[in-house]
Amino acid sequence: MDTNITIAVDAMGADAGPQVAVEGALAALKDSKFGSKITKIALVGRQAEIKSILGKISHDVNRLEVVDAQEVIHVEEVPTSAIKTKKNSSIVVGLNLVKQGRAAAFVSAGSTGAVLAGGTTIIGRIKGIKRPALGVLLPNSTGGHTFLTDAGANVDAKPEFLLQFAQMGSVYMESVLGVDNPRIGLVNVGAEREKGNSVAKAAYELLEASDLNFTGNVEARDIPGGAVDVAVCDGFVGNIILKYTEGYAKGMFATLKIELVSRFLSRFGALLSRGAFKRMRKRYDYTEVGGAPFIGLNGLVVKAHGSSNAKAIKNSIGQCVKFIEGGVVAKIQSMSNNNEED
Amino acid sequence: MDTNITIAVDAMGADAGPQVAVEGALAALKDSKFGSKITKIALVGRQAEIKSILGKISHDVNRLEVVDAQEVIHVEEVPTSAIKTKKNSSIVVGLNLVKQGRAAAFVSAGSTGAVLAGGTTIIGRIKGIKRPALGVLLPNSTGGHTFLTDAGANVDAKPEFLLQFAQMGSVYMESVLGVDNPRIGLVNVGAEREKGNSVAKAAYELLEASDLNFTGNVEARDIPGGAVDVAVCDGFVGNIILKYTEGYAKGMFATLKIELVSRFLSRFGALLSRGAFKRMRKRYDYTEVGGAPFIGLNGLVVKAHGSSNAKAIKNSIGQCVKFIEGGVVAKIQSMSNNNEED
Repeated sequence: MDTNITIAVDAMGADAGPQVAVEGALAALKDSKFGSKITKIALVGRQAEIKSILGKISHDVNRLEVVDAQEVIHVEEVPTSAIKTKKNSSIVVGLNLVKQGRAAAFVSAGSTGAVLAGGTTIIGRIKGIKRPALGVLLPNSTGGHTFLTDAGANVDAKPEFLLQFAQMGSVYMESVLGVDNPRIGLVNVGAEREKGNSVAKAAYELLEASDLNFTGNVEARDIPGGAVDVAVCDGFVGNIILKYTEGYAKGMFATLKIELVSRFLSRFGALLSRGAFKRMRKRYDYTEVGGAPFIGLNGLVVKAHGSSNAKAIKNSIGQCVKFIEGGVVAKIQSMSNNNEED
Repeated sequence: MDTNITIAVDAMGADAGPQVAVEGALAALKDSKFGSKITKIALVGRQAEIKSILGKISHDVNRLEVVDAQEVIHVEEVPTSAIKTKKNSSIVVGLNLVKQGRAAAFVSAGSTGAVLAGGTTIIGRIKGIKRPALGVLLPNSTGGHTFLTDAGANVDAKPEFLLQFAQMGSVYMESVLGVDNPRIGLVNVGAEREKGNSVAKAAYELLEASDLNFTGNVEARDIPGGAVDVAVCDGFVGNIILKYTEGYAKGMFATLKIELVSRFLSRFGALLSRGAFKRMRKRYDYTEVGGAPFIGLNGLVVKAHGSSNAKAIKNSIGQCVKFIEGGVVAKIQSMSNNNEED
């Protein structure tokens, strides 16, 4: 068990600017559940800006370090070249802290492409892992979560990548969320084994032959109900499910709001029910979950949503603590070694 | 304009049995908007069963024909072989009515695979159309609909298929829904043109070079908001979006219900707001839309949901009327001829 938990946080990544990262980091250190487990947080970014925000908030200077990085990689930039040219960007500096062992994890709400490209080239893949994958915890209607992986790192995936996504997802759900023997489903257009495109069909065979708790194909309609603990797909399909979820929930809430305020009685009713709507929104609120871990690297990188607020950053940091405590990297390393020996 | 509109309806397809098809057909003939445009409906299936239901409901015998088909193709059967061996099934008989010109359209709530396989082999593709596609009208938060195509017919699609899906979708939205110069979006993981997997990247180029109103990539999060009129993707992605929508809406309504009844005040509020919830459900109710047209064939085939009720069947029939009035098949034929000449 790692008793020194230092987490690096990209102060420049969020759309809303450094304020949310600084506030999120301070809230994480004080959090009643996981705050005491964090040795230190390193805020990475423009020192003067960060210090100016920090100057206005009381905090424990021994547990909060500012690591200077003058450059910022913007979402419009081509990820691979931005990583190469902006050596002094918050993303590159933050990833290097993990590479050098000075931090156990890096949280960024910045460019997804740059975080993924940088994670792979700077921190590097675990030996035997062909492609690291993004994982996202989707809230399901059982009150729990489904780990959707790959959620966007590999838009063209081979069947053997999908097998590894499933293996890493299984380790994640077991070690971080405490799910016993996680149920693995292959996202597909039908329940029957012969269904799907050529990649899905080949992945089915690999998953079936593995020692995972593979429960077969999972139809997209059964994901929100929590039919599986890990939903495996390529990054194209995963990213579409992830983003569609976001847009659909927004659309439904917007429609409901229009309908609720359209008549007096409904409006009055909505006022009385507002507690229920608040709880509902909380259940579907991504800021509660934190970010998306990029798994398969020799270290932890968590991609937080660009529109993250301080709470989302705080929860992303909390997720890192659980990931580190669960020893996920070591478990994937050992799993990958076993595969190599097969 | 076809002044004789005869529509064949699979009486055996719906999960709930022949009753819903019979009731749906009768409701369609009486519908105030499109009922008078229908010359005749042919109910295809086990004659004795259908006639026994019809015997209990008053109807105009001149406008309702029963076409006997003793066999039923079940969803568990392998579509291609079922189509070949069950020549006297309601699906094969119904599709033959279209092929022979005895009906302008066939509506079935039966096995999707059998309807698609049978549609292609019995009715046949429009000359020049490489792959017919399923289209689905997704309700969006503008109060309108987005045509998602392909929604499941071609799980492995080439870029040139996607171009044709877009062309057919454009004709559909213009002719059936009266959308002027429909906005076509390519479902992708990012807005930028270089985003996506290899098929999406190549399809982007083809769409851009076409004379369609191509608005670029559409991110899945923008589909529910109605960012485009036609959302183009392969059948694997489309089917996942379609089924995910179904499951997600169900999950959200279930969660909301739990939250609303969990406290007294919310419960009382929900009672007052129930009109709004009813209107909301109506907006997201697939039975309002009808079925999914299978476009690109020399005739119209509409796949209704397996769990269709009489209203869904009625609305699927109404959708056929609009499709026939819009002359969609002829327009796709002429479009396809123009492509050939290019």
